[in-house]
Amino acid sequence: MSVSEKTTYRPPSLPQISVGGFWRTRIAAVRDHTAPVLYERAIEAGTLDQVDVDRPVPDLRIPIGPWGGTQQMFWDSDLGKIIETYAYLVSEKRDPEIEERVDYLVGLLKKLQQPDGYLNSWFTHMEPGKRWTNLRDWHELYNAGHLLEGAVAYYQATGKRDFLDIMERYVDHIAERFGTGDGQTRGYPGHEELELALMSLYRLTGDRKRLDLASYFIDERGRRPHFFEAEAAARGETSYDGPGANHEYNHSHKPVREQDKVVGHAVRAMYLYSGMADVAMETGDDSLRQALDRLWDDLTSKRLYITGGIGPSKENEGFTADYDFPNETAYAETCAAIGLVFWARRMLGFGPNTRYADVMEQALYNGVLSGMSLDGTKFFYENPLESRGNHHRWKWHACPCCPPNLARLTASIGTYIYGQAEDAIAVHLYAESAGRFDIAGGKVVLTQATRYPWDGTVEIRVGVDNAGPFTLSARIPGWSRGATARLNGETVDVDANVKNGYLALTRQWRDGDVLVLHIPLEPRILWAHPEIRQDAGRVALARGPLLYCLETADNPFSLNRVRLRPDTVIASEFRQDMLGGVTVLKANAGLAATDDWGTTLYREKAPIVVDATITAIPYFAWDNRRGGEMLVWLPAAGAGT
Amino acid sequence: MSVSEKTTYRPPSLPQISVGGFWRTRIAAVRDHTAPVLYERAIEAGTLDQVDVDRPVPDLRIPIGPWGGTQQMFWDSDLGKIIETYAYLVSEKRDPEIEERVDYLVGLLKKLQQPDGYLNSWFTHMEPGKRWTNLRDWHELYNAGHLLEGAVAYYQATGKRDFLDIMERYVDHIAERFGTGDGQTRGYPGHEELELALMSLYRLTGDRKRLDLASYFIDERGRRPHFFEAEAAARGETSYDGPGANHEYNHSHKPVREQDKVVGHAVRAMYLYSGMADVAMETGDDSLRQALDRLWDDLTSKRLYITGGIGPSKENEGFTADYDFPNETAYAETCAAIGLVFWARRMLGFGPNTRYADVMEQALYNGVLSGMSLDGTKFFYENPLESRGNHHRWKWHACPCCPPNLARLTASIGTYIYGQAEDAIAVHLYAESAGRFDIAGGKVVLTQATRYPWDGTVEIRVGVDNAGPFTLSARIPGWSRGATARLNGETVDVDANVKNGYLALTRQWRDGDVLVLHIPLEPRILWAHPEIRQDAGRVALARGPLLYCLETADNPFSLNRVRLRPDTVIASEFRQDMLGGVTVLKANAGLAATDDWGTTLYREKAPIVVDATITAIPYFAWDNRRGGEMLVWLPAAGAGT
Repeated sequence: MSVSEKTTYRPPSLPQISVGGFWRTRIAAVRDHTAPVLYERAIEAGTLDQVDVDRPVPDLRIPIGPWGGTQQMFWDSDLGKIIETYAYLVSEKRDPEIEERVDYLVGLLKKLQQPDGYLNSWFTHMEPGKRWTNLRDWHELYNAGHLLEGAVAYYQATGKRDFLDIMERYVDHIAERFGTGDGQTRGYPGHEELELALMSLYRLTGDRKRLDLASYFIDERGRRPHFFEAEAAARGETSYDGPGANHEYNHSHKPVREQDKVVGHAVRAMYLYSGMADVAMETGDDSLRQALDRLWDDLTSKRLYITGGIGPSKENEGFTADYDFPNETAYAETCAAIGLVFWARRMLGFGPNTRYADVMEQALYNGVLSGMSLDGTKFFYENPLESRGNHHRWKWHACPCCPPNLARLTASIGTYIYGQAEDAIAVHLYAESAGRFDIAGGKVVLTQATRYPWDGTVEIRVGVDNAGPFTLSARIPGWSRGATARLNGETVDVDANVKNGYLALTRQWRDGDVLVLHIPLEPRILWAHPEIRQDAGRVALARGPLLYCLETADNPFSLNRVRLRPDTVIASEFRQDMLGGVTVLKANAGLAATDDWGTTLYREKAPIVVDATITAIPYFAWDNRRGGEMLVWLPAAGAGT
Repeated sequence: MSVSEKTTYRPPSLPQISVGGFWRTRIAAVRDHTAPVLYERAIEAGTLDQVDVDRPVPDLRIPIGPWGGTQQMFWDSDLGKIIETYAYLVSEKRDPEIEERVDYLVGLLKKLQQPDGYLNSWFTHMEPGKRWTNLRDWHELYNAGHLLEGAVAYYQATGKRDFLDIMERYVDHIAERFGTGDGQTRGYPGHEELELALMSLYRLTGDRKRLDLASYFIDERGRRPHFFEAEAAARGETSYDGPGANHEYNHSHKPVREQDKVVGHAVRAMYLYSGMADVAMETGDDSLRQALDRLWDDLTSKRLYITGGIGPSKENEGFTADYDFPNETAYAETCAAIGLVFWARRMLGFGPNTRYADVMEQALYNGVLSGMSLDGTKFFYENPLESRGNHHRWKWHACPCCPPNLARLTASIGTYIYGQAEDAIAVHLYAESAGRFDIAGGKVVLTQATRYPWDGTVEIRVGVDNAGPFTLSARIPGWSRGATARLNGETVDVDANVKNGYLALTRQWRDGDVLVLHIPLEPRILWAHPEIRQDAGRVALARGPLLYCLETADNPFSLNRVRLRPDTVIASEFRQDMLGGVTVLKANAGLAATDDWGTTLYREKAPIVVDATITAIPYFAWDNRRGGEMLVWLPAAGAGT
C-alpha cells in the first residue's frame, strides 16, 4: 500500500470491537428482528424466484406480495446487503442457522454464475441477452458491487471462500470487459457502488488489479465523448427523458475531479464519493481529495438537512437547489444518509477531524436511525421533518434498498467508533465499547464506559501491552461548549491540546491509564440559515448529537400552534419507560389559541397565545407509538426581533 | 317559474350591463388576445382534427404540438367554452369575424351529430362503439354541459338557433337515455357540469323537462346501489385504483342532501353545487339549500385559501384535510376558483348576503385573475402562494380547461356585478359600469363611477323611468371597517340600514338620485387560523379585495428573509407605470442577515435582523415580469408573542 500508515486512519475490523450500551440495543434489534425479516420478506417478494435458475422464469405481469411489486433489476444488490448483514452478525457471534442460510444463497449464486464469470439474476434468468447494454439505468455494476461487499464481509467473518471466489471471477470478467484497452468498453456504473466495493476487495487481498479497476471507473466517469450517450445510440435510442437524461443525475456530467456541486441522485453521489475517498486514501491522489473537500463543503454548507438527511426531492431521489429543505415532503432517503456516513467515515481516513465526524454522527443518530422502527421490523424510505400523521414506516417496499442497508450499517457500527493508524487511535464516536488494536509495536485495548448519547461523561480506560508511544485522539464534538478532560484524575488543558477538533494526546501510555471526558449535553435551540425559506422564523431542539421533535403522543394539540421563545429554559429528563429509554426535553411554550376564531380562517388580530408545556423526543424515535403529527422546526415566538 | 321573483335575485343578461374601468382592461385583453389565442392553440393542439369527422382519425400515439399532448376526451368541453366566450364578446359588440368562426365550428358539430341526437367527438370519431359505457371517467355528460352552455350563450348573443337546436336534440337524447323510467339507465355525470347547463337552458326556454333532467341527475347522485360500481361491473372491471375509486372524488359517496364536507375534485364540486343552487332556487327546495349552506360553511371555515383558491392537492385535483394549505405546492386550480365564483353567484340568488359576495370577490380578484397574464396570452393551471422562481404561466396545456374558463368568466363579468329581483337591485361588486333593469314596473339605470379596486369611493347614480319603489342593496364588504354612505349629499346611517352585510335602501327612487359610498381600503395585515400549519408565524398583506405578495423584481433578496412586524405602517401608492397600473404597498421590515453565517447551516444564535423596505404587488399580477421568487405569507417579527 502506497500511502503511509502513519497518516491514514483505517477502521478496525469488526471482531476488534465489542459494543454495548445504546448501540447494543440497536444491534440486538437487527439480530433478533431485522435479520429474519430481511430474508422472509425478500422471499415473499419473490427474490429467490429470480435468483434461483432452477425455478420457472417469473412472470413480470403478476404483482407479488402484499406490496404489489414485481421482480426488480436491482434485487441482487439487496441480496448482497442481506449477506453482508449476516456476515457481520456471524462475525460477532457464530450462528450455524444464519451461516446455513447464507451458504444456501451462495449456492444459488454459484448456479447462476455463467461460464465466463458473469453473475446477474436479471440478465441471466429474466432477460437473457441484454447484458451490458444499458449501464446507465440497469444497475448491473451496482449489483456486482453489493454482492462483492457481501462476499468480502462473509469471507472475513467465516473464512469461507466460496462466495469470494465467485465474486473474484465476476470481477475478473468485469475487468476484462471494461477499460481503456483494445477491445474493451469504456463504460462505468450508472449507479455508483462497485468502486468502493472493489476497494474493499483490494484491502482484503492486496491485489492491485482491483484498485486499478476502481480507479479506472472513477477516472473514466464524465469524459467526452460521453459513454452513456454512445451506449444509448448503440441501443438505437433516439430520445430519452428519464432521470439519467440529465448527466448530473448520475454524476457523469463532468470528470469527477472537476465536480464541485453535490447534485443528482443522493445515494449514488455518496457511493461515488466514498469510492473516490477510498482511492484517494490508498493512492495519495491529492486531486481526488481536493475534489472531495470541495464537494464536502458544498454539501455541508448548503445541502444538508439538520437531520443529516440529504436529497430533498422525490423526483430525482436527490438534490435540488441550495438551501432547499422542504420539511413535510423531504425525501431524505434513509440510504442517502447511510451513504453520507460511509463517505464521512472515509474522509476520517485522512486523519481525525470533527469536520467529518460531526456530520457522520449527525447523520447516524438522526437521519439514519430514524429509518428503522425501534424493534427493527419496519422501515422508512423517506425521512421527513414534519408529518401531519400520514407518514409511517412500512413493512416492505417495491424498492427494498433501505432495510438491509440499515441492518448492515448497524451490525457493523463498531468499526465506525474508532480509527487506527500506525501509532495512533482516534475515537470518532462515543459509545459503550471496547476496542483491541495492534499499534505502536504492541497491543492496546481501549474501553469506553459511557451512557452516551444520554450522558456526556465518557471514561476511556487504556490497556497497554508492550506498545510504544502513540496518539490517542478523542473527539470534542463541534456542537459542544466547555468540554473538559481529566487524565488519571489530573485536568487536561483541552484547548491547548485540540487539533482539528480532537483532543490529541501523544505519550507513552501506561496500562490502566484513564481518560475521563465530560462533553456537556446542554439542550440547544437552533436556527436555520436565513436562506432556508422553509425554516424561516422557526427553531429546532437538539441535545448532544440528537435532534429532537414533537409528536402528538406527548403534545395533544396541533404542533404548529406551538410558539417557542428562543430564550426558554429547556429541561432534560431521562425516561426509562418511554421508547426503550430516551432523554426527553421539556419546556414551557406558547400555544396559539383557536377558540376565539369561530368560523374565521383569516383575520387582522394576531392569535392569542396561551401557556403550554411541550415534550420533545429524539427524532430517530418518532412514529413508534400511535399515529399523529410530528414536527422538527417549531414556530419561534418573537422570531428574529 | 315556481319561486317568487320577489325573493330570488337573478343575474342580469350581459347586454344589460356596460363595464369600464378595471374590468374593461381585462375584457380588452380577452377580446384582443385570449380570444384568438384560444382558437389558434386549440387548432394547433389538434382539436378540430378530432371534431371534424371529414378528417382522418387522429393517431393517438403521435404527440401534438409543442406541448406533446394527445387528443383528449374532454376537448368538446373546451370548444363549448370557447364558443361561450365568443358569444359574450359578440353580445357586447357584434363581430362578423368571430361569428363566422363560431358558425364554422357549429357546422362541424352538426356534421358530428348522430341521427339519434348523440354528439361527442371522441366516441363518434375516435373510439366509436364505447359511448355511454363509462360515465364515471369519460367526461361525456360534462362535454354535453359545456357545449350546451355555449349554445345557450350564442343564441342569446345572436339569435341564431342552429347550435341551440343541435344541443336541444342532444339533450332530448340524454333525457331519453338516463332516468328512473323503464328502459332508462340510472346514470349521472362523473364530472358534474351538465346540471347547471341544463338550468341555463331551462331559464332560456322555460321547458320544464330541462329542470326535471337536472333534478334527476342531482337526486340520483350517490344513491345505492351505486351506479358507477354497477357500470364498472358491466364493463367487466374487477378492480380500479383511479381517482374515482373513492366515490368522494366525484361526490357520489352519498346522496347530495346528506353531504356536509367539501371533498374530492374541486372543480367538479363547484359545478355540482352550482347546479344544486340553480335547482334549489328554481324549485324552492329547502333541503338542497340546507345542504349547500352546510357545504359553504365547511368550505369557507376550513378549506379556502386566502386567495379564494381551493383544492390544495394535485393528486386528486382537489381537497385534502381541514386547514391544509400548502403554499408552494398549492394546486388551487384556476378552474376551481372560477367554479367557486359560479357557486357564490348562485348563492346570491337567494338574496344579497356578504357571506357569499365576499368570497365571490375574493376568488375573482385573486385566485381567478392570477390565472391569466395581464396581456391575456398565458395561463396558470395551478396557483401557488409561494414560488422559488420555477412556476410560470404556460402558453397551452395538455388539459386546456382553464384558459377558456377564464375567458368566458371575464367576458361575462358584467353579469356578476349586479343581481335583480322583482323590485330590487343588488350591487354585489363595485366596478365602473352601467346597468339597465326592468323592475318595479319601470326602467332603472344604475351608473357606478369608481376607481375600485384601487379606490374605495363609489358613486352610484340612479336613473328611473316610471318605476315604483324598489330596494337598492349595496354591499359593505366584510373586510371593510367604517364604510360610510351619502344619499344626495345626506349622510346615511349605514349600521342602521345594513342587512346581511348590504346597505339596503327601500324607497321611491328619483331620477338623478346619487348614492356615494366610501369603502375604506386601508392595507390590512392578516393572520391565518392557528390550525393552518403552513402559515404559522406568518402574515399576509391585503388591501380592499386584493391580496398582496412580494416578488423578487421589487425585493432583491430571498423573500423568506423578510421579518414583518404586525404593527408596521403600510403605505399605499398607485403606480401607473407598473403592471398596467396597480396600487403597491410599501413597508419597513426586518431582513434576516446572511453575511455572518459563513458556511454554517444551523446555529444557536438567532439571525441578525437588519432594516429593509418591502414593496408588495397585487397577487393576481405576479409573474408578469422577469422570473424570481413570489411569496404571500411573510414571516412575522415578534410572531404570536
